[in-house]
Amino acid sequence: MYQSVLDEIYDEVQPLVGQGPVASYIPRLASVPADKFGMAVQMVEGSLYQIGDAGERFSIQSISKIFVFALALKHAEDAIWERVGREPSGRPFNSLVQLEYENGVPRNPFINSGAFVVTDIVMSFTADAKRYLLEFVRMLAGNPDIQYDYEVARSEADHGHRNAALANFLKCYGNLRCEVASVLDAYFTHCSLAMSCVDLARASLFLANGGRIPQHDDPIISPEQAKGVNALLMTCGTYDEAGDFAYRVGLPGKSGVGGGIVAIVPGHASVVVWSPGLTPGGNSLAGIRALELFASLTGHSLF
Amino acid sequence: MYQSVLDEIYDEVQPLVGQGPVASYIPRLASVPADKFGMAVQMVEGSLYQIGDAGERFSIQSISKIFVFALALKHAEDAIWERVGREPSGRPFNSLVQLEYENGVPRNPFINSGAFVVTDIVMSFTADAKRYLLEFVRMLAGNPDIQYDYEVARSEADHGHRNAALANFLKCYGNLRCEVASVLDAYFTHCSLAMSCVDLARASLFLANGGRIPQHDDPIISPEQAKGVNALLMTCGTYDEAGDFAYRVGLPGKSGVGGGIVAIVPGHASVVVWSPGLTPGGNSLAGIRALELFASLTGHSLF
Amino acid sequence: MYQSVLDEIYDEVQPLVGQGPVASYIPRLASVPADKFGMAVQMVEGSLYQIGDAGERFSIQSISKIFVFALALKHAEDAIWERVGREPSGRPFNSLVQLEYENGVPRNPFINSGAFVVTDIVMSFTADAKRYLLEFVRMLAGNPDIQYDYEVARSEADHGHRNAALANFLKCYGNLRCEVASVLDAYFTHCSLAMSCVDLARASLFLANGGRIPQHDDPIISPEQAKGVNALLMTCGTYDEAGDFAYRVGLPGKSGVGGGIVAIVPGHASVVVWSPGLTPGGNSLAGIRALELFASLTGHSLF
Amino acid sequence: MYQSVLDEIYDEVQPLVGQGPVASYIPRLASVPADKFGMAVQMVEGSLYQIGDAGERFSIQSISKIFVFALALKHAEDAIWERVGREPSGRPFNSLVQLEYENGVPRNPFINSGAFVVTDIVMSFTADAKRYLLEFVRMLAGNPDIQYDYEVARSEADHGHRNAALANFLKCYGNLRCEVASVLDAYFTHCSLAMSCVDLARASLFLANGGRIPQHDDPIISPEQAKGVNALLMTCGTYDEAGDFAYRVGLPGKSGVGGGIVAIVPGHASVVVWSPGLTPGGNSLAGIRALELFASLTGHSLF
Repeated sequence: MYQSVLDEIYDEVQPLVGQGPVASYIPRLASVPADKFGMAVQMVEGSLYQIGDAGERFSIQSISKIFVFALALKHAEDAIWERVGREPSGRPFNSLVQLEYENGVPRNPFINSGAFVVTDIVMSFTADAKRYLLEFVRMLAGNPDIQYDYEVARSEADHGHRNAALANFLKCYGNLRCEVASVLDAYFTHCSLAMSCVDLARASLFLANGGRIPQHDDPIISPEQAKGVNALLMTCGTYDEAGDFAYRVGLPGKSGVGGGIVAIVPGHASVVVWSPGLTPGGNSLAGIRALELFASLTGHSLF
Repeated sequence: MYQSVLDEIYDEVQPLVGQGPVASYIPRLASVPADKFGMAVQMVEGSLYQIGDAGERFSIQSISKIFVFALALKHAEDAIWERVGREPSGRPFNSLVQLEYENGVPRNPFINSGAFVVTDIVMSFTADAKRYLLEFVRMLAGNPDIQYDYEVARSEADHGHRNAALANFLKCYGNLRCEVASVLDAYFTHCSLAMSCVDLARASLFLANGGRIPQHDDPIISPEQAKGVNALLMTCGTYDEAGDFAYRVGLPGKSGVGGGIVAIVPGHASVVVWSPGLTPGGNSLAGIRALELFASLTGHSLF
Repeated sequence: MYQSVLDEIYDEVQPLVGQGPVASYIPRLASVPADKFGMAVQMVEGSLYQIGDAGERFSIQSISKIFVFALALKHAEDAIWERVGREPSGRPFNSLVQLEYENGVPRNPFINSGAFVVTDIVMSFTADAKRYLLEFVRMLAGNPDIQYDYEVARSEADHGHRNAALANFLKCYGNLRCEVASVLDAYFTHCSLAMSCVDLARASLFLANGGRIPQHDDPIISPEQAKGVNALLMTCGTYDEAGDFAYRVGLPGKSGVGGGIVAIVPGHASVVVWSPGLTPGGNSLAGIRALELFASLTGHSLF
Repeated sequence: MYQSVLDEIYDEVQPLVGQGPVASYIPRLASVPADKFGMAVQMVEGSLYQIGDAGERFSIQSISKIFVFALALKHAEDAIWERVGREPSGRPFNSLVQLEYENGVPRNPFINSGAFVVTDIVMSFTADAKRYLLEFVRMLAGNPDIQYDYEVARSEADHGHRNAALANFLKCYGNLRCEVASVLDAYFTHCSLAMSCVDLARASLFLANGGRIPQHDDPIISPEQAKGVNALLMTCGTYDEAGDFAYRVGLPGKSGVGGGIVAIVPGHASVVVWSPGLTPGGNSLAGIRALELFASLTGHSLF
C-alpha cells in the first residue's frame, strides 16, 4: 500500500513542486534546482519505500537539531530543562525579542537560540561535538558515507550575523558556557549535514520506535524521551507554522530551510520529504502538502 | 482496567490536591473548596468510568471555547480562518501585545481574543448565541439540566476590564462585527456553564469519535474537522503551558481556570479531570498530573 | 518684527499647505478643508500677532491634554507621579504594548493612556470635569464663548474602540478610579474643544510666563510646575515625532490631530499654528515647518 | 557667582555622594571609589569654575558618543539620518527589541546601536578612527595628555557580549559597513577615554557656543548642527531617564556609566559633573541632583 500512496502523492504534488522561493541567503542553497521532490518512508517493521529524488543528498539544516537534541537528552537531560523551555515561541525562529523579554532562556530547543544552548550542552560532555554528531548520525542512518558540507558551513558563518547576535545575547545572559565562536562553528557545521530522504528516514526511525533502532541492542534514548521529542516536534518543530502543520498533517515534524521535513508516525514509521521551494514560514511548500496527503491517505494523523 | 487506573491515579494525586492557588479574581470561583478532585472517562464504545467528585458541577470557563468553536466550525468554517490564526501564541492567554503586533488577528481560537472572534461568528448565524450554545451542550452531554451560572457571568463582567480591552481592540481592527458589549456578554455567559466531569466527558466525546455522538445519526462535525480541533487543542489548548502539556501528557487538551481539563484520546475516549488548585500557567495542578498518569498507565499518549 | 516674521512664514509654507492627509477617522474632522493655515503669537509683554486663519476655530483634540494636565498639577501633583511616568514612549500614542510591559503605568501624561489617568485624577477633585475644564480654558483664553463640539465628542466615542481598549486596560491594572465610560466621556469631550489659534495662544501663555497670566493675581501653576510642563512637552508633546520636533524646532510643543500645534518660548511667547494636513506621525505638516521657520527667524530655539 | 553656586551644590549633594551602586560589570570601573564628586563649569566667555574632584580623570564611557557623533555630523551628516533615527527609544540603551521591530535602524545616535552606526560612519572617512577621535578630543579640550585606557577597553570587549549581539544584529540588517569586530574595537576604545570634569567641560564647550571654540577660527560644526546635537541630548542623552532629566534639570545632557554627565547651557556654558554612584537608569545619582541644583540656582533651565 505505501508504495502506491507515494505514487499518488508524487502525482498530486507536481503542480506545487517548484513553487515557493528556494532559500537564497547562501549561494550553495540558492543553487539547488527548485524542481526537486523526493520522499521516503521507513517502516518500524523494516520496509523502506521511496519515490522521486529520495536518494539525492541535500542540506538538512535545522533538521540536524533533532539529532543534537537527542544526544543532549541521552547524556545530560537534567541540564537541558534548566536552560531551555519547551513552549512554542509564537515568534520567528531567529527572533531576539522573546529572548530579551524572557531573560536569555530560549523558548524551546528547536528555535535557533535553543539549539545553541543544546549544542553548548553537547560540547560540555564531548571534546569534538562535530565528530561526535557525525558518527551518531552515520550510525543511526547506517551510512558511513554521510558528510558535512564544509562549504555550506563556511557560507553560513559568513552570513550568520543574526545567529551571532543570538549567540552573543545568550552569552551575556550566562546561558552559553563555551565560547560564542566555537558554539556557532559547531552549530553551522551540524546544519551542513548532507543527507538524502532515505538517510534521514533511517536516522530518525528511533523516534517512531520508542527510542530504539533495529541494528542496536541498547536504546538510543528511552521510550519516555522519544515521546518527549515527538511532543516537542509537534508543538515547536516547524517554526512559526507549527500550529498549521499540526492542523493539516497531524504528525510531529521537523523542517529545515533546505526543503527537507522529517515526520514521525509513532509506532509505525518515519517519513521524510524534500522539495526546496518554501512557504513564507520557511517550510517546504510541496513537502507539507505531501505529508498532509500521506496522513490523509494512510489514516496516520494522530488526531 | 480503566476503573483501576482511575483508582490508582486518585491515590497518587492526593498529595497534589489542594496545592496551587484557586482562581480568585471573582468571588464565586474563590469560594470553591481547594480539595476537590474528580475524574471521568467516557469511552467511544460506551462505557463510563468515574472517581471522586466527578459528578459535581463546576464552572467550566475556558473549556466552553471548545463548544463555541465547534459550532462556528459546523456552520461557518470559512469565516474562521480569515479572522483567526491557528498558531500557538507564545504569550499569556489575555495578552494584548501580540494582537497589536499582528494587527488584530488573534493567534488562535483558544486565547481569549480568538474566542471573542469565534463568538462573534456564532452570533452572526444565530439570534441568541447563549440559548444556542446551551442547547448544543445539553444535547452533546445528554443532560437537559445543564445551566449557566448567571452570578458567575455577572461577576466576570464586573471584573472583565482586560477582556473589555481585548474586545475593544479587536473592534478597532474591524475584527468584531457585533457590538463589543454583546460579544462580551455572550462570552462571559458561555464561560459560566456549570458542568460535571461526567457531563463534560460526554459532551466532548464527539472529538474522540470522528465528530459523531452515539445518540445522533448526523455527525456534529466532519472527521476532518474533529482532527483539526484536536490538533488545535494540542498546540494551543492549555494557555502558555501547551508545550509542557504535550510533553508530559501527550494528548490534546483544553483547560479552564475553574480547574477543569478535557483531554481527548482520538478513537478511544474523552477524559475529564477537575481540581481547582492551579499552576502558575492557570491549569489544574493535580489535573495535569492525573492526565500524565492516565496517559502513562494506559499507553494512550499519542507520541 | 514678529508680524513680518509671520508674513514671511506664511509665504514660505504655502507649498506645504494642503499637503498630507487630513485626519479622517471621524467625519467632522475629515470635512475640514485641507488648505487652512493660521498662526498666532502671544507675547508675554502683551502683544498679539496673527496671520491667515488664526481666528478660525478648529478641534484642538490632544492639545487639550495640556490644560487637563495643568489642572491636575495645580490640585493634585503628588497623585500624578505615582500613576504616570514622565518618559517619552518610543511607541505610537495609542499603543497598548508598552502599557502591558509596564503593568498599566503610562509612560507620560501626553500619550492617550496617560491622559486618561490625568483625567481620572481631575475627576477625583471635581464633580463635573467637563464644566471645570471648559471654565478653566475660557478663563485662560479670556473668551467666554469657547465651546465643546458635542458632535465631535460623540463621533470620537463612536470610533473610540482603541481608546476604550486602553482605558479598560488601565482599569484592569487598577490605574483608573472612576468608571471607564465616564473617563472616556470626559476625555472625548475635552478633546472636542473648538478654539482658534488666537484662543490657544492666549490660553497657553501661562506656560511661557512662569505659570502666570496677566489678568490674574494668583499664579495658575508655580514657576517650577510651568518648567516641568514645558520639559514634558519637549520630550513627549508631539507623539512619536518628539525627537524630530525638538531637532527641527527646538521648542516645547503639543500637537493635536486636528492640525493644531502649541509651542512655548519660555519667558517670551506662546506660538500657535494650525493647518490640517498631517505628517505620518500625526502632526501638522505645514505647522511643523512654520514653527521651524519661526524658531530660525527669531532665534528662539532653546538650543 | 558661579563659584559660590558650586560651593553650595557641593555641600548640598554630600548626603547623596556614595549613594547608588558603582558600575561593576568590568573590574576597572568597579574599583573606582564611590565617594568621588567633582564639578566644572566652563563659561563661553572664558572663565572656568570647579570644585571637588573636578581635576581627576575618570572613564567617560558613553559621553564619548557626543564627540564621535560631532565628527560624523561634521564630515557625513547626510549619511547619518538615512541610517539612524532621532527619536527617544523608550527602552533601555542596549535593548535589541526595538532594533528588531524597527528593522535594524537604531532609534537615535546615543543608544549603543546608534553609536555603532555612527562609529561605522566615522570609520568610512578615516583610516584610524581611534587616533582620529583622540586627536579631536585633545584639540577640543586643549589637553594633549588625554589618553585611552586600554585596560578598560579590553575589559569592555571581554564583557561585551550584549554589544556584540547588537552589532551583529545591525550587520545582519546591512546597517554596518565595516566588520563587526573592528566597529566594536573602535567603540570600546572610544568609551575608554579618561578625562576630568575640566577636560570634558572644555571639550564640550563648542555645543554651548554655536559650534565654535575660542582657540579655533573655523567652527567645529555649524550653529544649526550644534542646536541639533543639543536637541538630541535633551530627548535622548540620558538613557531611559531622559524625560526625568529634562523635567528636573531642563538642560541637554549626556551621561556615562562611569558617573560623568555633560550638560549644556546654550549660549552660556558647559557644565560637567562626576560622581560614580548610579541611579537605576544608569545615570550619576549625585550628578543629576547637582545639575538640578545648578539649573535652579542659576536660573539656567531652558524651560
